[in-house]
Amino acid sequence: MAVRVDLNISLDGFATTTDATPENPFGSDWGRLVEAYTSTRTFRERVLHDTSGEGTSGVDDKYAAAYFEGVGAEIMGAGMFGFHNFPDDPEWKGWWGDEPPFRVPVFVLTHTPRPDITMAGGTTFHFVDTSPEEVLERALSAAGEKDVRIGGGPTVVRDYLSAGLVDRLHVAITPILLGSGIRLWDDLRGLESEYTVTSETAESGIIHVTFRR
Amino acid sequence: MAVRVDLNISLDGFATTTDATPENPFGSDWGRLVEAYTSTRTFRERVLHDTSGEGTSGVDDKYAAAYFEGVGAEIMGAGMFGFHNFPDDPEWKGWWGDEPPFRVPVFVLTHTPRPDITMAGGTTFHFVDTSPEEVLERALSAAGEKDVRIGGGPTVVRDYLSAGLVDRLHVAITPILLGSGIRLWDDLRGLESEYTVTSETAESGIIHVTFRR
Repeated sequence: MAVRVDLNISLDGFATTTDATPENPFGSDWGRLVEAYTSTRTFRERVLHDTSGEGTSGVDDKYAAAYFEGVGAEIMGAGMFGFHNFPDDPEWKGWWGDEPPFRVPVFVLTHTPRPDITMAGGTTFHFVDTSPEEVLERALSAAGEKDVRIGGGPTVVRDYLSAGLVDRLHVAITPILLGSGIRLWDDLRGLESEYTVTSETAESGIIHVTFRR
Repeated sequence: MAVRVDLNISLDGFATTTDATPENPFGSDWGRLVEAYTSTRTFRERVLHDTSGEGTSGVDDKYAAAYFEGVGAEIMGAGMFGFHNFPDDPEWKGWWGDEPPFRVPVFVLTHTPRPDITMAGGTTFHFVDTSPEEVLERALSAAGEKDVRIGGGPTVVRDYLSAGLVDRLHVAITPILLGSGIRLWDDLRGLESEYTVTSETAESGIIHVTFRR
């Protein structure tokens, strides 16, 4: 039972992109940032419901598979859920289609809560307006013996890292420079002192860095 | 004949540290940032004149050896030479002792030029108050068939990167978070599009990332 984070960041440390438009809400930078991850066999199967067995099967896929293993609840910010893009749509159910890949309770931090949404496949979105610590209590309780993931975005992740509440942080660093966005690492001086840090490079060029307690 | 850069940066992208004091002009963060490099056999021999053969001999030492190979001239900023720390000392000859490790002409960018200084071992410091492009012309001419290194600091390196004048950029990323300082990557969005980028992790935990044209 651990609190985990997995994030994709650029070599200059950005976990968000800035080229989104109403027509292309992720922008094209987002695709470049997560390309190695979305090319994995695991992502294709788990998120795109592609059962052809296609996709990469190397180091990146090992991390993609680990991403979904042993997680019993997820916490995410309002921006990651999409409330900043669709604030006035009462029917908005996130970016992940009718059968989201989480398959566990997902706690969405928001100042404008709405009723729970139960999706196909085991995902239930709960909308909560409490402190990060209180949400984590609820998520740990929902996860039982399993892990809780802090899914993002980077501001939410930083809050949990700053509070010392994260047991394992995995970042997949894409060797591109985005130049602007929200930085994961701001105001986290000395974070490494509480962790053992290891690194591994993938065939794709992605650098996987893991902080473990 | 190439223009090369080698820099040590933290995981959050800082190439300078901020805990220096008059008594400890490098601060203790600097030691943590470059520890894997200064532990190499090559650094100990070349910079500390330690001929015992001690020091690490793995991936970090491979990069340390490459650092000194084939360089015919060096360019550095006034801050790297130490003028910001010792602006009023006409006898200041840099941080590197009587026999600096460069052993080639070194061009120091400064708005307050002074006469050349010739050191033991082949290093001559030239102090120049011209544009980065003009200094590079002089350095390339001095280097003959060999490479020119842009030694630092990060602001000078960024100027040369922004101007498209760097053929090979090697960064050694130390997995620590410094939280403040001068960032190498600021305002370099899309830099990777002009290069092939490769990564390699060392036994020490250092991540070596190389941009090659």
